Amino acid sequence: MITCAPEQVQHFPLRPPMPPHTASTRRRVLAIGVIGPGRVGSALLEQLRTAQARLARDSGLELKLCGVVASKRMWLDCDDAELNARHDGAQVWRPNDLDAFAEHVRGNDGRHALLIDCSANDEVAAHYPRWLAAGLHVVTPNKLAGSGPLPRWQAIRAACAGGARFRYEATVCAGLPVVQTLRDLLDTGDELLAVDGMFSGTLAWLCNRHDGRQPFSALVREAHALGYTEPDPRDDLSGLDVARKLVILAREAGWPLSLEDVDLQGLVPPALAALPRDDFMQRLDELDAPMAAKLAEAHAEGGVLRHVARLDRHGRASVRLQVLPASHAFAHTRLTDNIVQFTTRRYCDNPLSVQGPGAGPEVTAAGVFTDLLRIAESLEARA
Amino acid sequence: MITCAPEQVQHFPLRPPMPPHTASTRRRVLAIGVIGPGRVGSALLEQLRTAQARLARDSGLELKLCGVVASKRMWLDCDDAELNARHDGAQVWRPNDLDAFAEHVRGNDGRHALLIDCSANDEVAAHYPRWLAAGLHVVTPNKLAGSGPLPRWQAIRAACAGGARFRYEATVCAGLPVVQTLRDLLDTGDELLAVDGMFSGTLAWLCNRHDGRQPFSALVREAHALGYTEPDPRDDLSGLDVARKLVILAREAGWPLSLEDVDLQGLVPPALAALPRDDFMQRLDELDAPMAAKLAEAHAEGGVLRHVARLDRHGRASVRLQVLPASHAFAHTRLTDNIVQFTTRRYCDNPLSVQGPGAGPEVTAAGVFTDLLRIAESLEARA
Repeated sequence: MITCAPEQVQHFPLRPPMPPHTASTRRRVLAIGVIGPGRVGSALLEQLRTAQARLARDSGLELKLCGVVASKRMWLDCDDAELNARHDGAQVWRPNDLDAFAEHVRGNDGRHALLIDCSANDEVAAHYPRWLAAGLHVVTPNKLAGSGPLPRWQAIRAACAGGARFRYEATVCAGLPVVQTLRDLLDTGDELLAVDGMFSGTLAWLCNRHDGRQPFSALVREAHALGYTEPDPRDDLSGLDVARKLVILAREAGWPLSLEDVDLQGLVPPALAALPRDDFMQRLDELDAPMAAKLAEAHAEGGVLRHVARLDRHGRASVRLQVLPASHAFAHTRLTDNIVQFTTRRYCDNPLSVQGPGAGPEVTAAGVFTDLLRIAESLEARA
Repeated sequence: MITCAPEQVQHFPLRPPMPPHTASTRRRVLAIGVIGPGRVGSALLEQLRTAQARLARDSGLELKLCGVVASKRMWLDCDDAELNARHDGAQVWRPNDLDAFAEHVRGNDGRHALLIDCSANDEVAAHYPRWLAAGLHVVTPNKLAGSGPLPRWQAIRAACAGGARFRYEATVCAGLPVVQTLRDLLDTGDELLAVDGMFSGTLAWLCNRHDGRQPFSALVREAHALGYTEPDPRDDLSGLDVARKLVILAREAGWPLSLEDVDLQGLVPPALAALPRDDFMQRLDELDAPMAAKLAEAHAEGGVLRHVARLDRHGRASVRLQVLPASHAFAHTRLTDNIVQFTTRRYCDNPLSVQGPGAGPEVTAAGVFTDLLRIAESLEARA
């Protein structure tokens, strides 16, 4: 289409590069504090330690781990003069104090600073607006901010106006590229028509295995024994966790939804919802008759039973057991896979879908790490 | 896990934000030149025009379209004093001159500048190293750089050392998040064990429809009539385009592959490869016997026939017709969908997969636009 003689190329008269462009592997320091060194937090710390030298060499990014907060105490890596004097520059353990922790990570030299919340704690999420307003970036796999009270969510978004970034890819399907993919669709001007997904590996496994040969309760017991469910299986069966993920995606798409707006149909009969866990496990077979009836309905229609989250173009959100045709993509997922489908104006005949394992410490930590890298890309060079 | 009394939160003593953090919707200007206003280029220009006001308002990003190069001439939007004097500040058409075009887009005020190559022209790709070395960012859906001669690819990568960015998400499966997903896996320290994919909507459609009820040639003629194939169907059937995408992913993963390294088994018998197109179309039924034999083989094994690209952990790449079990994910894709599966150390039991339409001007342009936004995020504020 374009013709251009080689000699023209040879004599292309570009002036030498401008200084600002040549800041190549421009050195950037990112101070990091990790809140909650549980399974995800520990996996993340390990990933960061392994990557540290490579990132510094290949992209000029220096990750400076400044502290970790656990449930009762916190560890600070100090070059603070006073502390150095008192502790000989060594690592310092102190009682847990989130305020002092954030202040420490932020430092007083105008450096870039990031707090990573790997706790599942609502009190920590309550700090985000003030941290962000104070210029600290925040990354989290914690769903409590994204699906919690709307005013707090709005305060978080407002607090980002100062330039600090809040990212939460790992809140939905762990390391799978879901939130960023939706963001990119919207930012490039596409229009979201629907989100359909299976956001619970546990419920996917149960639905995949529920073929009538065993009562549903036997499958729940098996999943519980295999560690596929939370310690209290109702935390999966209620669908609440799935609804949280759907709220996060809905808000990303601009719908000011709250959990109460989701038409949530879980698998726990109301009579069993409030029982102590052991009593619930005793009465698990009360799930069998309703689930067998649902399955018979699916079979009668030649379809399959799946637990599906859906957001439509009007912002209506539902999480429920559904009969799907046997040809539906959700009928052919691998056992515990998560899947999300975005139907948009551009992807209207066939949706864009992302599928894979949507839980686990390593992949969740990788989702957090990806957010960290995305923030690091946007940092200006600063010592 | 972490307890923190509300009053503690209220009195959190963060100092006011540092000035560098508050550069919020920091104003950034990105000068853009588009090369090749064909179907993808036109769709992109439309998307950029639609998004322009929103991006400026919401993120401080000002896209400044400075010119478009078509096959014979180029349009420049000038605020260059000399040209202004001669043309009264109006838009200027001139004969196609890539050298002058790049110089014009880059400007002389140290601004950020991006060239978007929507041509399918190898001569344009030959310019990338020098443009990048001169500080111009380059984004393209053009596969010729990523899958072309290795020394040129290496020159392109080397030219990025100065800080200019080269991005090419849309070269593989158009707007689907494939290259970035692989990048993120690797950058967060995961290890790639395999890539499996179907990167041709045309070949996917042909394999999906090829059930023995019609000869394969009839399906090719139908796809041709529907516009699913290139004007010369051999451009799809050869598998060359698929091999190019696999080479791009292999290089992304660090394997210095070239097209010749791919074990490429296309569907065009050697005797038909060099014929004029009309003669080839006349002799299309020579594909029927070998394809029927392959299908019989698949049926005998209870499987399906799919055209699959594969890269293994040792950097071995193949593109070929394969018999897959009926339960395989590739047996259940929607008609013309592309799919890519990444098997990694972290995603080893079940792969991470991305699926959806992998061609078309709108989604390809959106992939380019996403790259543009990713570059824009990393720009330092500059007038």
